[in-house]
Amino acid sequence: MTERAGDRPAQFAPRVSVEAVEEGPLLAPKFNAEGFIPVVTTDARSGEVLMMGVMTAEALLRTIETGEAHYWSRSRQCLWHKGATSGLAQKVIQIRVDDDQDAIWLRVEVEHGASCHVGYRSCFYRSVPIGHLGDTQVRLTFEEIEKVFDPRIVYGDAPNPTQL
Amino acid sequence: MTERAGDRPAQFAPRVSVEAVEEGPLLAPKFNAEGFIPVVTTDARSGEVLMMGVMTAEALLRTIETGEAHYWSRSRQCLWHKGATSGLAQKVIQIRVDDDQDAIWLRVEVEHGASCHVGYRSCFYRSVPIGHLGDTQVRLTFEEIEKVFDPRIVYGDAPNPTQL
Repeated sequence: MTERAGDRPAQFAPRVSVEAVEEGPLLAPKFNAEGFIPVVTTDARSGEVLMMGVMTAEALLRTIETGEAHYWSRSRQCLWHKGATSGLAQKVIQIRVDDDQDAIWLRVEVEHGASCHVGYRSCFYRSVPIGHLGDTQVRLTFEEIEKVFDPRIVYGDAPNPTQL
Repeated sequence: MTERAGDRPAQFAPRVSVEAVEEGPLLAPKFNAEGFIPVVTTDARSGEVLMMGVMTAEALLRTIETGEAHYWSRSRQCLWHKGATSGLAQKVIQIRVDDDQDAIWLRVEVEHGASCHVGYRSCFYRSVPIGHLGDTQVRLTFEEIEKVFDPRIVYGDAPNPTQL
């Protein structure tokens, strides 16, 4: 089932007023024109940001119901049960929604502590130095030195999702 | 200055290969068709997710250079130095970029510990219960009970950014 505009599931309240969306007790998520809501996923213990992605209405409903993170894969154009290929499923400890209900925060536990397809714990394994910018390209610092797993073993011949 | 396609600043490396983007030491951010890159901002001490937003190339460069968070305001359609209206500036402790360099993570310190325009510490002050879904609307749980500040005092008559 792919989400279509107008297909609002019965579990989602209509967005009738700013006050109801911001201060009310009903889930009334906002999906963009493509049908996506952005998601940030953190390690429930360390607070580290593991990844950012998007959900469709269906992915959000399956995440709520199963307690395992589901996203929409923009590279593969399909519902994505995280871990179905890699085994690195995310057990959802808490789901949060923001003030205007156009973003989702998942707090998860991950087996082996790894989430990134490159093999690192977090997708955010590099930092950008803060301070004066010259006219030259900015050099990154690796904050994770060692990979947690070998992506060639975990993913085999699956295509790399990174797009230029 | 509004970013236009093709206006790639000299500080950003070209995205020449998946390997260079994922494993290389140069900042080569990817902006979407609208010129945005999504950003998640966490409290550097607690790990709590404070907000999600977007940056333009200019917002990212200003954040790097000043060490204060700059975003693109989609409601006001302008560069947004967070805190210029509210006084709730975000001091950036660390900037991270993800594997395919299409997302940014800011670790910040916020005066008064508050970031949300509704008055809460985090924009994500409500949670969604996990488990069986009926056919009825989902009820949220408030995870923050008390507001940190009174938005009427901090923002005065500024228009509410929430859009239905």
